[in-house]
Amino acid sequence: MNFCSACGHTVELRIPAGDSFTRYVCPSCGKVHYQNPLLVVGCVPEWNDQVLLCRRAIEPRRGYWTIPAGFMENDETLAEGAARETMEEAMARVEIQDMFAVVDVVHARQVHVMFRARLLDGRFGAGAESLEVALFDPGDIPWDEIAFLSVRFALEKFLEDRAAGVVRLHTTALERRGGG
Amino acid sequence: MNFCSACGHTVELRIPAGDSFTRYVCPSCGKVHYQNPLLVVGCVPEWNDQVLLCRRAIEPRRGYWTIPAGFMENDETLAEGAARETMEEAMARVEIQDMFAVVDVVHARQVHVMFRARLLDGRFGAGAESLEVALFDPGDIPWDEIAFLSVRFALEKFLEDRAAGVVRLHTTALERRGGG
Repeated sequence: MNFCSACGHTVELRIPAGDSFTRYVCPSCGKVHYQNPLLVVGCVPEWNDQVLLCRRAIEPRRGYWTIPAGFMENDETLAEGAARETMEEAMARVEIQDMFAVVDVVHARQVHVMFRARLLDGRFGAGAESLEVALFDPGDIPWDEIAFLSVRFALEKFLEDRAAGVVRLHTTALERRGGG
Repeated sequence: MNFCSACGHTVELRIPAGDSFTRYVCPSCGKVHYQNPLLVVGCVPEWNDQVLLCRRAIEPRRGYWTIPAGFMENDETLAEGAARETMEEAMARVEIQDMFAVVDVVHARQVHVMFRARLLDGRFGAGAESLEVALFDPGDIPWDEIAFLSVRFALEKFLEDRAAGVVRLHTTALERRGGG
């Protein structure tokens, strides 16, 4: 950040009065430009005991598999964001169910929130950010080609809990220098 | 937002190529300025079956009671943020336990994440953003003076679950025009 988005003046890095963190501050208009972690929302869509995965068409991790997920937008709920991302990336309509995984991805300044979900009609396709989208039996999931550690965590917990017939929340913090 | 924080040029509102949302975009350097919901993290600190509440010294809702909570910062986990806010607002050290409430506060463009917690040594005091801090028996909680709907939701679920001897996750979305 170089310039104040409000008045256009050059910003400075300093600790505002009453604060304890270094922020970008505008010395002209006084605006403090806070920077905070972003929410990523996604889901594990099920259909006939299979799970829907997307092979990424974009960086990071192009060519690797993931669940439908992306940045939460303003004016939507977490669940609405997860459903929207599923439509965008997998062209699939889902019923969003329980929130079951929350992952601190500290090095990326993100928090990932994942839901269970159910395909509404079994239809899906590759959205603009996906090379391909497919349903996998649990035994056929390409574990060595999963894009992100948070997605691996979510898929593992999802399958464990489904096998055990339980629904519960799993939380974890990824290593600060981990792979996202 | 009026100016590009990267190059200082005047920004425009438009839908970037490949996107489906209207964003602030810089026509000079091309930077897209995304705006996304913020995370608020907090906890319900317990001590001898009482809960710790703070009376707010700042707007919004000055003079009303809340649990220790505030905006998550970069480079911390959700739990670390909740503990930090408790130190700042209630001058109390806590052990953060289960995440038990996640609230979509859509109209404020926030997601509130609350944890159970335990005071480590029973000590607390009013931080700079609090008029006073006090322990309450459940029957003495000032329900008519609770600052935010998300805090009321969290306190109600916390007490219900404690009475029932269960630990579980509660999620809700506040009405889009509700009181936060």
